[in-house]
Amino acid sequence: MPVNLNPPVAAQLLPVAGVSLGVAEAGIKRENRKDLLVMQLCDGARVAGVFTKNRFCAAPVTVAKEHLAAGAGIRALLVNTGNANAGTGEQGLQDARSTCAALAGVLGCQAEQILPFSTGVIMEPLPVAKIAAGLPAAVTNLVADNWFDAAHAIMTTDIVAKAVSKQVVIDGVTVTITGISKGSGMIHPNMATMLGYIATDAAIAQAPLQAMVSAAANRSFNCITVDGDTSTNDALMLIATGQAGMPEITGASGSAYETMLAAITEVATVLAQAIVRDGEGATKFITIKIEGGRDEDECKRIGYAIAHSPLVKTAFFASDPNLGRILAAIGYAGVDDLDVAALRLYLDDVLVAENGGRAASYREEDGQRVMQQSDITIRVVLNRGAVDATLWSCDFSYDYVKINASYRS
Amino acid sequence: MPVNLNPPVAAQLLPVAGVSLGVAEAGIKRENRKDLLVMQLCDGARVAGVFTKNRFCAAPVTVAKEHLAAGAGIRALLVNTGNANAGTGEQGLQDARSTCAALAGVLGCQAEQILPFSTGVIMEPLPVAKIAAGLPAAVTNLVADNWFDAAHAIMTTDIVAKAVSKQVVIDGVTVTITGISKGSGMIHPNMATMLGYIATDAAIAQAPLQAMVSAAANRSFNCITVDGDTSTNDALMLIATGQAGMPEITGASGSAYETMLAAITEVATVLAQAIVRDGEGATKFITIKIEGGRDEDECKRIGYAIAHSPLVKTAFFASDPNLGRILAAIGYAGVDDLDVAALRLYLDDVLVAENGGRAASYREEDGQRVMQQSDITIRVVLNRGAVDATLWSCDFSYDYVKINASYRS
Repeated sequence: MPVNLNPPVAAQLLPVAGVSLGVAEAGIKRENRKDLLVMQLCDGARVAGVFTKNRFCAAPVTVAKEHLAAGAGIRALLVNTGNANAGTGEQGLQDARSTCAALAGVLGCQAEQILPFSTGVIMEPLPVAKIAAGLPAAVTNLVADNWFDAAHAIMTTDIVAKAVSKQVVIDGVTVTITGISKGSGMIHPNMATMLGYIATDAAIAQAPLQAMVSAAANRSFNCITVDGDTSTNDALMLIATGQAGMPEITGASGSAYETMLAAITEVATVLAQAIVRDGEGATKFITIKIEGGRDEDECKRIGYAIAHSPLVKTAFFASDPNLGRILAAIGYAGVDDLDVAALRLYLDDVLVAENGGRAASYREEDGQRVMQQSDITIRVVLNRGAVDATLWSCDFSYDYVKINASYRS
Repeated sequence: MPVNLNPPVAAQLLPVAGVSLGVAEAGIKRENRKDLLVMQLCDGARVAGVFTKNRFCAAPVTVAKEHLAAGAGIRALLVNTGNANAGTGEQGLQDARSTCAALAGVLGCQAEQILPFSTGVIMEPLPVAKIAAGLPAAVTNLVADNWFDAAHAIMTTDIVAKAVSKQVVIDGVTVTITGISKGSGMIHPNMATMLGYIATDAAIAQAPLQAMVSAAANRSFNCITVDGDTSTNDALMLIATGQAGMPEITGASGSAYETMLAAITEVATVLAQAIVRDGEGATKFITIKIEGGRDEDECKRIGYAIAHSPLVKTAFFASDPNLGRILAAIGYAGVDDLDVAALRLYLDDVLVAENGGRAASYREEDGQRVMQQSDITIRVVLNRGAVDATLWSCDFSYDYVKINASYRS
């Protein structure tokens, strides 16, 4: 079950002027399930995004990048679940282009003004005809106040839909941000694709919009992990419609830019953390803070070694303060000159290790108390620099874990 | 259950002249269980080893390296299970030295002529008194023909003991090699420490002995993975007693050296593969061959990405040819200029993917047939160089996997 994650409330999701959303049941993988989303954008809306770095990136990722680069102005995003159109070679590219052309025909625009996204099973041909047949229904119900349905239409094995809204005031103008995401991670049977769509009615030029989505992703979606598997289809898109009536943000600096970046990062962080909280089988949400590193790379390296260690994750599921496993993960993170005697390890407020071993003040009952919580922070103070990094992860559960969990009992 | 792994047969384990072994029940973690091994070496025996690269390496690793470097001649190895003496700081080092001193006292040698090894739970103080109290019993039953008991005495959560013997003829002299190992990997609740001890009565000088153990480890223990967690205590030791009556191998080249290296590598490979076959919950033994890479680093990088992917591992447990997951793992292995359209993916003899997608000749029933086997080879032909690498891994099983397994059905 999701860890401290409430489903979105439809009434709390705010429309974003210039964005209308329509969903449909196209029967892509199963019948009677919303599996198609069309997001139509007003004229002049700008779109920027970050995509998976997987070399086997899916066909829609390739096509979306091409269409963004074409610069013809994006008029709609098309998202299907049930099929990732990944590992599909040349045919996959043709199929992704065909779905764009089909939607362009319905909306009366050019195919390169459509961005395609797919999530689901990979190495299976995309059912283009089913998608094309579903488009009229999705377009017919395009409305602005439809983020709730949109969040549901992009789910695959997610248990809880992920959506959030926020408003900020920029230059005296109230600006609205609404975002949705999907994904859940390793324990799920799909590619664990993470998709995120954040729209705002703020006016932001293309260059700062791209800088903003990259920076926000770097502090949100790029800081979560369930399993370390990087999907072929991951994408985070940021849409700025310019309908709020504020002066355009023209550069990647200044107070308006910083205010917007902070708000977008906050929305992205909520959406990204929700993916971890919905990691199937997750029973613990784990925040990993690495402090006092020399650079971000070594902080993230150590953080990910902890986050990806099956031994650490199973200990957390078992609520077993077998915390030496964290030391071991720090030790093999690949920071070659790391002085293990200089670092301190905390579990929430409890000092666990220092001087290369268990802290003299540490009592098993304190570790046990923190391990019972569903939200836990692991803090590693490296004492070798001034850089910090924060990651979010979850535990491993299920019967296979019980064997791990019984070792110390 | 272990995958195609037979327990050792006592009568097939050959004594190695110059090595005698004694075991005892010291009650380190549990009563009534062999948990202490003493391997006494004849005068003039040489020992070389490779150790974990974990920065949080255990105290016995540090002490064993010091004692090897001291060059006083190693007279015995002392192995305990039930406690890893890792993450124990300064006290752990003192404790490791104390156990060496205790055994030196019993055997009448110097403490730095003893190499200590520990495996088991970490961040708990080593019960030095129990170990010291168990030593006389172990020393009393020191005999050459005791490899079977020795293999059992170093087990932690291993289901099957791991031991093998081999003989080769060098310069007309029959030389004996016997080795034992322990370890099992992530699904096990301990640190998954891998320990390996290989002894031969061949005469080998120190420098070629060190070259030999490094080379053999690189093609055996360094090519297996269950979970990617590198233990604080891993060690592989190679002992050459020189009792066979052959001319000493004095350099790391020539036919005698190459013959010995091949035999040692073969023994090490059997012992290393046995660790994977005994990975708890493993139902499939997976050989991963990466061919046609530019260098070993990129071959191993891609191989480990496949081997560590929980999504790939769960697909194998489910016998589900959801083989796009392998493509995805190849794609995120970090080989930035990889041309995915140029590579070919095979499952045993079945061509699965080429030209960036599923091969036209691929039939689901062929993939399904191979996936039913308990020994499976994944072969990736990169077509970008002349270097190959082979790794061995296993699947993930248990209920948590059932959820993964049901996605495509």
